[in-house]
Amino acid sequence: MPKKVPHRLYLTEDQMPKQWYNLRADMKEQPAPILNPGTLQPATVEELYPVFCEKLAQQEMDSTTRYIDIPEEIQDFYKMYRPSPLIRAYNLEKALGTPAKIYYKFEGNNTSGSHKLNSAIAQAYYAKEQGLTSLTTETGAGQWGTALSEACSYYKLPLTVYMVKVSYEQKPFRKSVMQTFDAEIIPSPSNTTKVGQMILSQDPNTGGSLGCAISEAVEKAVTTENCRYVLGSVLNQVLLHQSIIGLESKMAMEILDEYPDIVIGCAGGGSNLGGLIAPFMQDKLLGKANPRIIAVEPASCPSLTRGRYAYDFCDTGRVTPLAKMYTLGCDFMPSANHAGGLRYHGMSPILSKLYHDGYMEAIAVEQTKVFEAAVFFAKQETILPAPESAHAIRGAIDEALKCKETGEAKTILFGLTGTGYFDMTAYNAYLNGTMTDYIPTDEDLQKGFERLPKIPGIQ
Amino acid sequence: MPKKVPHRLYLTEDQMPKQWYNLRADMKEQPAPILNPGTLQPATVEELYPVFCEKLAQQEMDSTTRYIDIPEEIQDFYKMYRPSPLIRAYNLEKALGTPAKIYYKFEGNNTSGSHKLNSAIAQAYYAKEQGLTSLTTETGAGQWGTALSEACSYYKLPLTVYMVKVSYEQKPFRKSVMQTFDAEIIPSPSNTTKVGQMILSQDPNTGGSLGCAISEAVEKAVTTENCRYVLGSVLNQVLLHQSIIGLESKMAMEILDEYPDIVIGCAGGGSNLGGLIAPFMQDKLLGKANPRIIAVEPASCPSLTRGRYAYDFCDTGRVTPLAKMYTLGCDFMPSANHAGGLRYHGMSPILSKLYHDGYMEAIAVEQTKVFEAAVFFAKQETILPAPESAHAIRGAIDEALKCKETGEAKTILFGLTGTGYFDMTAYNAYLNGTMTDYIPTDEDLQKGFERLPKIPGIQ
Repeated sequence: MPKKVPHRLYLTEDQMPKQWYNLRADMKEQPAPILNPGTLQPATVEELYPVFCEKLAQQEMDSTTRYIDIPEEIQDFYKMYRPSPLIRAYNLEKALGTPAKIYYKFEGNNTSGSHKLNSAIAQAYYAKEQGLTSLTTETGAGQWGTALSEACSYYKLPLTVYMVKVSYEQKPFRKSVMQTFDAEIIPSPSNTTKVGQMILSQDPNTGGSLGCAISEAVEKAVTTENCRYVLGSVLNQVLLHQSIIGLESKMAMEILDEYPDIVIGCAGGGSNLGGLIAPFMQDKLLGKANPRIIAVEPASCPSLTRGRYAYDFCDTGRVTPLAKMYTLGCDFMPSANHAGGLRYHGMSPILSKLYHDGYMEAIAVEQTKVFEAAVFFAKQETILPAPESAHAIRGAIDEALKCKETGEAKTILFGLTGTGYFDMTAYNAYLNGTMTDYIPTDEDLQKGFERLPKIPGIQ
Repeated sequence: MPKKVPHRLYLTEDQMPKQWYNLRADMKEQPAPILNPGTLQPATVEELYPVFCEKLAQQEMDSTTRYIDIPEEIQDFYKMYRPSPLIRAYNLEKALGTPAKIYYKFEGNNTSGSHKLNSAIAQAYYAKEQGLTSLTTETGAGQWGTALSEACSYYKLPLTVYMVKVSYEQKPFRKSVMQTFDAEIIPSPSNTTKVGQMILSQDPNTGGSLGCAISEAVEKAVTTENCRYVLGSVLNQVLLHQSIIGLESKMAMEILDEYPDIVIGCAGGGSNLGGLIAPFMQDKLLGKANPRIIAVEPASCPSLTRGRYAYDFCDTGRVTPLAKMYTLGCDFMPSANHAGGLRYHGMSPILSKLYHDGYMEAIAVEQTKVFEAAVFFAKQETILPAPESAHAIRGAIDEALKCKETGEAKTILFGLTGTGYFDMTAYNAYLNGTMTDYIPTDEDLQKGFERLPKIPGIQ
């Protein structure tokens, strides 16, 4: 039985993308501009310089340059762990008995354990280029913190990571990996910042949140000389860097003479989803193809499926610029029983706009269903997925099962963003049967919506 | 600055080996035959059938078939995670300032985290083919147990893993990964076997050892209907399966028009080392090339560098056949402060014979030096290595530094067997400065040698 399509397709170094793709250049309508939190007017690029590295601030604001050269040093770094394979899920297809063809782009085969390294190395590179002498960031599940620690260690840039306290306590080994790469790890909220002190004074026992850790990291950056803040998701610049996932995927599929009918990604802040779908969304925007594009988010933190499309702060401390996005309110705290990442209250403004304009779909899935898919997948494909990635697996399996019912041989592409080696506590809970689902009530969500910022003339 | 050699070379599926290479077929002198522990006479293949799957027992005894076809199903499984990349360590070379060219074959990019899956899937396949209904094994650091759990889950073969108790307690997440793949994990020594009961009665607080866990797994196999025992190292069959590492490496180097002057592997029981060096050792045996081949073992468990070349049991309970190998004595217990694997008292009989006959060198390194190399490597190459693998890194770095002194541009190939994600406790100890070295005294070793089995007419 000849198999024309290999199990794993790796591009050669020559085939690797030399430019990132900026999806905004092809959007018919742009995402709403971010607002300066002081003036409530659209922020200028200069206003971002105190917080962001200049080159990254420029990328953040650039909605017209379609392709942006990847600096050669970053290309060289990419070559240490990329190209990532495009994998044909032969065993998963067989186990499901589906006529669908399932492909996944696997970004977990690097020590950071996820796709986050794609943007981390770019951000560290530009920071070094500008002559910055340290960086700050936050991390929740720990993938971004690990990736940035690796990148900063490579460029010998001191890094302070504010790690959401509940994660800091539950994942001591994540912390150790980051420390191996010389990062300083501070559980958030902490007494090292004013905003941390304030949040602790309100609730000394809080487990923290991403939004809160962002506030602390930003404060530390703006109060430290020659230091800036970097973020691993949500931002336009991050989606730009992560476009390498989609560009490689599309090229690999072209080599296989394939094109996806459905593209599926997990969605927290949007870094992986935005990167994976970028060139396929381009085709859709330009009328060249019409793949279905599906965001899969956790039912416990359902920003796209149940959030408001409104201006909101990117952090809990309300110090960042405001972005128009699907949001649950910047002080939304996902249930403590929610395992893994995808806990952010908002969603990438680019993806929010595309979703709002009908270019993509979104579904929310419960975590026991996600872990069911994770374990099933692991047994067929021998990769233990990160809980975040398993949201996309759940979506792909469900679409493949629909194909089984209808007999359609659709081509499904999903993003497998990372591995779950640091998430065994959550796997244990699933295997022991102690994992439960949590879905916020409408009343829960309403409280967050009521606290959305009031902006005269806008909302 | 053009780089002819890519950072990572992946063979295509077409280029992947379709046969394993059996090094014994080219050895001028064979390893001494294994002995039946009852008769102290050379064991027949039939005598192995109660313990081993028949096909594997035949492979164990086959010293003449040079190439053995890899069954198509195993080839297909290999394609899920192989070929593994041959990586040019550009950054490591630069950081060391060495003229040496350093290559490493990276086997850690699969969920088992190491090269162990190469033999695990083969052993599970042959067990399934024979109609066996369950398997037993032991695991120390956990890489073999994880790999076999994955392989058995794939073939829906129930598996019982006796996990060295100290490891069971120190690495709860390793256990969880194996449980995710449906394996039953029992801390060893346990009350589930007679040998376990006996060892516990002598020392109820023992942390266990690989040799002891082997005894339990063998007892469980021979007392359970339609069940057999499988082992992840030491055996000839394991080196056969692991030859895929060396075959792929050699082919990749040929594509790059390279040949190693030095081949370096870490050595515990010999599974990785034997696989990596196989085709290069063939060249050496046939007089086609003369690479230096270096085994790197821990100073705390120095079987090659300080052991006796003698017949010994493969397990602590003295129930297995006897093999002639470099050994520290079958009841040797490595210091509890020794982190990671490479704790076995003996060494592959094939490698022992080659070492004894002068075809390879061996060095022993202290664990703080190993972790120093591990952290240095991680920062340059962005891969967090397993402590076991870091022994080979240490060896490669030291050879590269010698090249720096002499100005020689030697080509070094080493095996990076796996990742250290489940070894963060050990990394913490190193980073905290609490890791210490342990080197057994001559008196310590002498005790083990005195207890080597007495075999009339032989030793």
